[in-house]
Amino acid sequence: MMKYQKPAELYEGLRLHQNENTLGCSPRVLDALRTLRPEQIGFYPPYAEATRACARFLGVHADSVTLTNGLDEGIMCMAVAYLRGGQDGRVHEAVVPEPAFEIFKFDTEVVGGRPVAVMPQPDFSFPLEEVLRALTAETRIVFLTNPNNPTGVSMPLEAVRTIAGAVPKEAVVFLDEAYADFSGTTFLPELSAFPNVIVGRTFSKAFGLAGLRIGCLVGAPEKLEPIRLVIPVYSVNIAAVVAVQAALEDRAFVADYMQQVAVSKSLLYEACDRLDLKYWRSDANFVLVNAGTQAGALVAGAAERGIYLRDRSNEPGCIGCVRIGTGSVEHTRQAIRVIEEVLCVAR
Amino acid sequence: MMKYQKPAELYEGLRLHQNENTLGCSPRVLDALRTLRPEQIGFYPPYAEATRACARFLGVHADSVTLTNGLDEGIMCMAVAYLRGGQDGRVHEAVVPEPAFEIFKFDTEVVGGRPVAVMPQPDFSFPLEEVLRALTAETRIVFLTNPNNPTGVSMPLEAVRTIAGAVPKEAVVFLDEAYADFSGTTFLPELSAFPNVIVGRTFSKAFGLAGLRIGCLVGAPEKLEPIRLVIPVYSVNIAAVVAVQAALEDRAFVADYMQQVAVSKSLLYEACDRLDLKYWRSDANFVLVNAGTQAGALVAGAAERGIYLRDRSNEPGCIGCVRIGTGSVEHTRQAIRVIEEVLCVAR
Repeated sequence: MMKYQKPAELYEGLRLHQNENTLGCSPRVLDALRTLRPEQIGFYPPYAEATRACARFLGVHADSVTLTNGLDEGIMCMAVAYLRGGQDGRVHEAVVPEPAFEIFKFDTEVVGGRPVAVMPQPDFSFPLEEVLRALTAETRIVFLTNPNNPTGVSMPLEAVRTIAGAVPKEAVVFLDEAYADFSGTTFLPELSAFPNVIVGRTFSKAFGLAGLRIGCLVGAPEKLEPIRLVIPVYSVNIAAVVAVQAALEDRAFVADYMQQVAVSKSLLYEACDRLDLKYWRSDANFVLVNAGTQAGALVAGAAERGIYLRDRSNEPGCIGCVRIGTGSVEHTRQAIRVIEEVLCVAR
Repeated sequence: MMKYQKPAELYEGLRLHQNENTLGCSPRVLDALRTLRPEQIGFYPPYAEATRACARFLGVHADSVTLTNGLDEGIMCMAVAYLRGGQDGRVHEAVVPEPAFEIFKFDTEVVGGRPVAVMPQPDFSFPLEEVLRALTAETRIVFLTNPNNPTGVSMPLEAVRTIAGAVPKEAVVFLDEAYADFSGTTFLPELSAFPNVIVGRTFSKAFGLAGLRIGCLVGAPEKLEPIRLVIPVYSVNIAAVVAVQAALEDRAFVADYMQQVAVSKSLLYEACDRLDLKYWRSDANFVLVNAGTQAGALVAGAAERGIYLRDRSNEPGCIGCVRIGTGSVEHTRQAIRVIEEVLCVAR
């Protein structure tokens, strides 16, 4: 079994390699953390109020929301619930259109399931026919991401509907909407019509709460129930509980960040055009850039200059590709200066 | 499959039902939380420094420590790693001497393993022979707790050594030391001699950090490795990371709490003697009291008066038993007044 290669603990430079909000969180989150009393730190946390706040934000019923310790916990617990081997020795399968968040594949293997990779199109358009062909009687999860990570490319919602109609009745379609705040497109309003779809959301990206670990799964209670049995009963911490409520009350902070993301992407596209680098137009807060044979040199050279980028060269369909966070305009300008410098030195 | 009956979200009264530190956390923890900067909230957390601090406190090498999102996460991920079904369809077993933290049994079932319960002695002395007889070729975890929850009774370390020498080579012995801060007895110095033992520790109890969710697994790296593959790479949050380091620097806070726990237990023992209630002398921060046929009335009557106690009547060997937190002396005095009132009304 392959082990997930966790990025090194790098905090000295500019972190453009983990799709975080490099502006951090809303000041209201810090204010909320300062209200925490000693006994709130000492007690196991209550979740009802934060769950309702998230449900209101997402426009769904609170019954269909399960808070998770970052969306990562939700994904692992879903894998345990739907992919672990049965007592009949049958191996359950997870279909993963590549390139994808690597955790899908690792979590599938770690619980004893079999990942079934679907290779990408050159333009990263969604490979619907190939996904449908990969479904079998043993399929228990189809892992979708919209917009995709690491490409930033969106998939058509019609493909979600088609896949949801084609999977075995025991299966779920997981739609990771970690970056949906940036695209503005969500499948959430359709969940009542597609009760075998589970949507994953996180407050780690647009809301800048990655350090506090809070996300959620949204879906039909009967499909969430097996996952809820796996999630430890006190998994989300009290700092995240108060922070998410404060963050949801400061939409101006998020709106400003999203505006900066839009400007940052334009700036990076222009730079890539100048440098004659191929890229994919992104609906998220990062851009995948094809630096070809210079990918390794770009990532290493930027790191030497204090800017961390993410080498995605080894992901399917991503030879020569580097993923670059595009959040704060100031940070993007710094990154572009460094990229230009490194590539001019290399040429 | 049975579902864990999570206690209701009760925060209006005095919480003596979840073994929390009702004094909360050290003031230094609040100071540390106030130092958090927006970008620390926005970034995925680093763990190296907090891991080293925990290792120093425990007197072990940092390589043998894995931080977990509360010890609960460690237990669930250990269950996934060691108990999930193989592709041969064999069902792995977990031996659980009862009464025990209910999560052991639930986590075993939820990952597809089979819990093998060992029934208790009337005096809750450790049933070593029965545990040894329960071991089979399919045993993959033996769940031990020292001191025990919910009885508060300690087990002899010699029994841990004997069991570690008797389990199959693929198995681990898990020793939950969640309450070892109170007993002062730990197996940690023996881990190098018993590399198939994994010790669990938590900062939720003596250190008053239950709300922030931080615990750890300690053991030989080769036995931790399968569990580390299951734990999401960013599971502990940044508030817990800074809090645990601050908490470990305020030993006076913990020493005072432990002193109060000792006094509280004496006070409760005296009250039980006066009221002619059987109890077990506890090495933890709670006491199991046998209220006989009045157990339900005691828990309900105390709750009506704003004090939450934990009915453990349905646990094996615990008919008529109520678990009562014994931390803050002032809180214990309040509890004793209410217990006396309720039982006098009932009689």
